[in-house]
Amino acid sequence: MQRIVECVPNFSEGRRREVIDQIVASIGEVTGVRVLDVESDADHNRTVVTFIGEPEAVEEAAFRGIRRAAELIDMEQHRGAHPRMGATDVVPFVPVRGVTMDDCVEMARRLGARVGDELGIPVYLYEAAATRPERINLADVRRGEYEGIRREIATDPQRAPDFGPREMGRAGATAIGVRPPLIAFNVYLTTDDVRIAQAIAKAVRHSSGGLRYVKALGLLVEGRAQVSMNLTDYRKTPIARVVELIRAEAARYGVAIAESEIIGLVPQEALLDAAVHYLQLHRFSVDQVLENRLAG
Amino acid sequence: MQRIVECVPNFSEGRRREVIDQIVASIGEVTGVRVLDVESDADHNRTVVTFIGEPEAVEEAAFRGIRRAAELIDMEQHRGAHPRMGATDVVPFVPVRGVTMDDCVEMARRLGARVGDELGIPVYLYEAAATRPERINLADVRRGEYEGIRREIATDPQRAPDFGPREMGRAGATAIGVRPPLIAFNVYLTTDDVRIAQAIAKAVRHSSGGLRYVKALGLLVEGRAQVSMNLTDYRKTPIARVVELIRAEAARYGVAIAESEIIGLVPQEALLDAAVHYLQLHRFSVDQVLENRLAG
Repeated sequence: MQRIVECVPNFSEGRRREVIDQIVASIGEVTGVRVLDVESDADHNRTVVTFIGEPEAVEEAAFRGIRRAAELIDMEQHRGAHPRMGATDVVPFVPVRGVTMDDCVEMARRLGARVGDELGIPVYLYEAAATRPERINLADVRRGEYEGIRREIATDPQRAPDFGPREMGRAGATAIGVRPPLIAFNVYLTTDDVRIAQAIAKAVRHSSGGLRYVKALGLLVEGRAQVSMNLTDYRKTPIARVVELIRAEAARYGVAIAESEIIGLVPQEALLDAAVHYLQLHRFSVDQVLENRLAG
Repeated sequence: MQRIVECVPNFSEGRRREVIDQIVASIGEVTGVRVLDVESDADHNRTVVTFIGEPEAVEEAAFRGIRRAAELIDMEQHRGAHPRMGATDVVPFVPVRGVTMDDCVEMARRLGARVGDELGIPVYLYEAAATRPERINLADVRRGEYEGIRREIATDPQRAPDFGPREMGRAGATAIGVRPPLIAFNVYLTTDDVRIAQAIAKAVRHSSGGLRYVKALGLLVEGRAQVSMNLTDYRKTPIARVVELIRAEAARYGVAIAESEIIGLVPQEALLDAAVHYLQLHRFSVDQVLENRLAG
């Protein structure tokens, strides 16, 4: 079966089309890489690129994107609404298929070493790739942004990068990390009472006592109460379990699930897991999916 | 999204390894085709090859397999327990992804014309590709087998082939057709009473009043009652509906579903449909599956 990793680098340029195009081209030129999405925001002055492929190709493409961004973006000139510390600000790897989180951590470390050595850019590992607890959270790593980190990197031991020099050039610093795939998932209820959606959101989300990898809000969308969620690790908190918990909570208020929706992309595995759950296919293997035999 | 067709030709040779290998090689040499399975039976003196790929590649590979079999197999010499009428006995196309039944019918007709014209082999279209009702059922087309059809083909109007000459050479005749993907699906009950499995099988299968595209038997397998099924068109009779009907019937007898299993391969769509059903993802598109963005 083909192994697939997703990578979603954020670059500190959201206005100059020709710069964005050159960075994206440097990623897309790697054989086996497919660029799925490019989203630029002029206010943030930032571009988010989404691409996928086999691990080796994705790692190489990430390196080329970082190198190109360092050539084209000058952090001394950069202004934007979004916090940032480098020309390539953050590079998360996401395991999609046939690849573990640990495999991606290895990719992050290898890429970090290469970016530090060959490009002379300080690299901080974050989230699942972090080397210390206080670097798990990206916001903590990026605190002070480009200007603050540049001031402190040589002297503050807390600022010592995982790879690269203890000084910052005009490309700034880059955070490289690993996170599970994120699923944007909404459930519509058979009511227009937003308070019910809010009560259910509170029941299912991690922050108020619910499921570990669920973020949730209750909203009113086009006249229907909606539980709007981010599922941050579908392997540990599967979609089916979230739906069944919402179904049970909704019944308390005498309402039901009208329908649900996935916004954007979803790994095949997340939906196969739901089919396996409901059909009780306890011994199912993903290799039984016909299409998966075509690749790799 | 990549288009995928499966093809499962049956060849009248199940003993001579070197003949089987040459036929399989002629199929596998087509770029983009992947041979998934080769099963030979010496008693039947017959080999079933399963391969997949994009429609054009699959059509070309099917032609090359038929041509090679015609060169290597002499139906005058063929003896075996399974009914047969040609060196390539039957060629079903199966739409797997991004391809309709009608697309496959076009493939079957184009291939049939080419086999008739270029190889001089009489071709009968069957199942979804049939040109008359009495040719839908393969057993009816093959009645009399090689010897009987050879005798009658020139004189009996019922035997006139859809393509090719009204006479048979040593390669015999070939049936080319289209059928939906077939899923072998078993449900285990929380009981060792086989009569309950038999009663449920009777309730869900088409032949005794149940769902249109379900064949079912009640069995005792390793001490557990099992409803053993073939789902012959999962698009029209989806797996989730079958499972829910069995669940309801099982409850009548005070038992439940212990687990279920899929034997062999299953198209991704059949399981995604189940996820969509249970998660109520009414507006889901298969293009939202991340991996499907890689191909095509």
